[in-house]
Amino acid sequence: MPFADLPTPCLLVDLDRLEANAAAMRARALRLGVRLRPHVKTHKVPEIARIQHGGVAGPITVSTLAEARAFAAVGFVDLCWALPLPAGRAAEAVALAEAVDRLVLLVDSPEAVGWIAAAARPGGRRIPVALKVDCGGRRAGVDPAGDEGPAIAARIAEDPRLEWAGLLTHAGHAYACRGPAEVEAVACQERGALLALAARLGRAGLPCPDLSLGSTPTLVHAEDLAGVTEVRPGNYVFFDAFQAAVGSCRIEDCALSVLCTVIGRHPARAALVLDAGALALSLDPGPRHVDPGCGFGAVFDTALAERCGALRIAALSQEHARVEVRGGLPPGAFPLGTRLRIVPNHACLAAACHPVHHAVRAGRVVARWVPVRGW
Amino acid sequence: MPFADLPTPCLLVDLDRLEANAAAMRARALRLGVRLRPHVKTHKVPEIARIQHGGVAGPITVSTLAEARAFAAVGFVDLCWALPLPAGRAAEAVALAEAVDRLVLLVDSPEAVGWIAAAARPGGRRIPVALKVDCGGRRAGVDPAGDEGPAIAARIAEDPRLEWAGLLTHAGHAYACRGPAEVEAVACQERGALLALAARLGRAGLPCPDLSLGSTPTLVHAEDLAGVTEVRPGNYVFFDAFQAAVGSCRIEDCALSVLCTVIGRHPARAALVLDAGALALSLDPGPRHVDPGCGFGAVFDTALAERCGALRIAALSQEHARVEVRGGLPPGAFPLGTRLRIVPNHACLAAACHPVHHAVRAGRVVARWVPVRGW
Repeated sequence: MPFADLPTPCLLVDLDRLEANAAAMRARALRLGVRLRPHVKTHKVPEIARIQHGGVAGPITVSTLAEARAFAAVGFVDLCWALPLPAGRAAEAVALAEAVDRLVLLVDSPEAVGWIAAAARPGGRRIPVALKVDCGGRRAGVDPAGDEGPAIAARIAEDPRLEWAGLLTHAGHAYACRGPAEVEAVACQERGALLALAARLGRAGLPCPDLSLGSTPTLVHAEDLAGVTEVRPGNYVFFDAFQAAVGSCRIEDCALSVLCTVIGRHPARAALVLDAGALALSLDPGPRHVDPGCGFGAVFDTALAERCGALRIAALSQEHARVEVRGGLPPGAFPLGTRLRIVPNHACLAAACHPVHHAVRAGRVVARWVPVRGW
Repeated sequence: MPFADLPTPCLLVDLDRLEANAAAMRARALRLGVRLRPHVKTHKVPEIARIQHGGVAGPITVSTLAEARAFAAVGFVDLCWALPLPAGRAAEAVALAEAVDRLVLLVDSPEAVGWIAAAARPGGRRIPVALKVDCGGRRAGVDPAGDEGPAIAARIAEDPRLEWAGLLTHAGHAYACRGPAEVEAVACQERGALLALAARLGRAGLPCPDLSLGSTPTLVHAEDLAGVTEVRPGNYVFFDAFQAAVGSCRIEDCALSVLCTVIGRHPARAALVLDAGALALSLDPGPRHVDPGCGFGAVFDTALAERCGALRIAALSQEHARVEVRGGLPPGAFPLGTRLRIVPNHACLAAACHPVHHAVRAGRVVARWVPVRGW
């Protein structure tokens, strides 16, 4: 089926670009000598995770237990749940960890170590537990220079029900950067935080089996990951308008788009209305720190070949996008019914809006993928 | 089941508040002498639409064909699709219009009139078509003072395949108001735009069977709707932090909340982390024009009785909320595992994030509702 015949709004995944992005990151991980454990929260689609691993169900990172269960059910049995374990979900997490090859759980508190140990079956498999380190994002994780990290690590290592898995960090603050030079500084900080805490732990007799890091911006610029064992980028498989603005990719690398239709033309106020609103694109404001006028996504023709540079998505309501046309709306331009593709600001959030991903190649829908949902 | 035992994050609908909000709007519509056609886009749950009508499948407004089909399948047969008809969806819309009692389609262009007429079955039922009027929101609709409106209306009325249904408007710009006085001015504009165009059409021999308006802010303050036949509020059934800020309701009227768990405590930086991120709350920035420091939702205890006024949701990532604690995080306050409820900034967008609504009363889950999704 030609994708141009799909009802709008709908989500399109450009397979050529997706495969190229996947192959590039696989090659990069290989060259840098690190295990690639892509974060599947970006798409939540098992078929895409297989493409990320060149066709096999390789190691993955998940953001929810719902993802972990659904991916495990279709053969992904080497998992890491990269969220500080919530109290009350330890029993479910441990039960899943016993059912797969490996599910690493993440903690940044002594309490969470206790919950996992208490949920582990006596005499059962040791549950792998990693320590979350804050490398500067100031969201979750222990201070790599503080005393809490070594104390928690020792507690994990001492408990016979647990397996000490090592350190994990995520440079979320890379998204505040304005270009590659700033991202490289954050990447240095990301790796530095891991290595510094690992060195302290090593001196205390507790070597780290794994040192895991990753965000798409820091990884696409990484040239030296000595000491690091694993990377967990997610967004790179799609990329998006944000990543292009901060220099992680070219806009023509973006593999995810929302197909939409012009449903309103208002020449008097130089405006169009599209049928892709906040429920089709998400309300992510985009890279305003780089481009204050960026709007809610980048508008392209249906081939994703030409950017409609005059069109700025000024506002989103639930099912409408309000588009400003710079320089005015000439007669005959963008007639009602025109199809456009929007490269979203934030691919992860936009993808989560949609019940189906349409994989497209050479103008045709070649597969329909259903993402996991919920928690 | 006590809702406190639910895995988090999850969506809770407080039934007492929902029923009170529904009853108040029903009473208001009755008193003002207008038909209530609630916009179900807010929840997309047939059970809630029945509560809005006091137990019956009354008239509803939908934002998508998916909603129209799903609600029609469970007995809602008097529908209005309040989106300017997208080219390419006319055949589906007309087919549904022939299968239900009444489905009003909306246009703001002569082209869309032509698509509907072309899709109508020769000799089949006349398809009701309403004209969308722009009352100042400058999103969709014709200028009520311009020539385009009467031309489109005449074209609808002349076509034997179509039924002229009247005028419809929506004061979306009410959301930019800072309080009741400004909202009342917008409400006056909303009704005035309809009445003015209806008067012009009447003088031209084309009376309007229906004059339909509505947004939650303008309707909760409406005292006089003379001439109007129908109202289409949606958000009022839940309300949210935004509506409370602009004076549509009290914060204690809000019926929708997201139950979450404290998964991180960082006293050194006076911060908490909650397991409700952008995929559980949406990224709606909230009423920043009224309260620049509002954050991404209002945090409450589990009973929704006490607002945690010191907690500000400063940032959301996909599955984390980063909370600033004003005045510092005292030892023992908000321990890991604490359950909290967040009244979202924008109930419609937050509700759409969740695969299930948990209806709760007296601390227990009394029903699980599955919303419609997609387009």
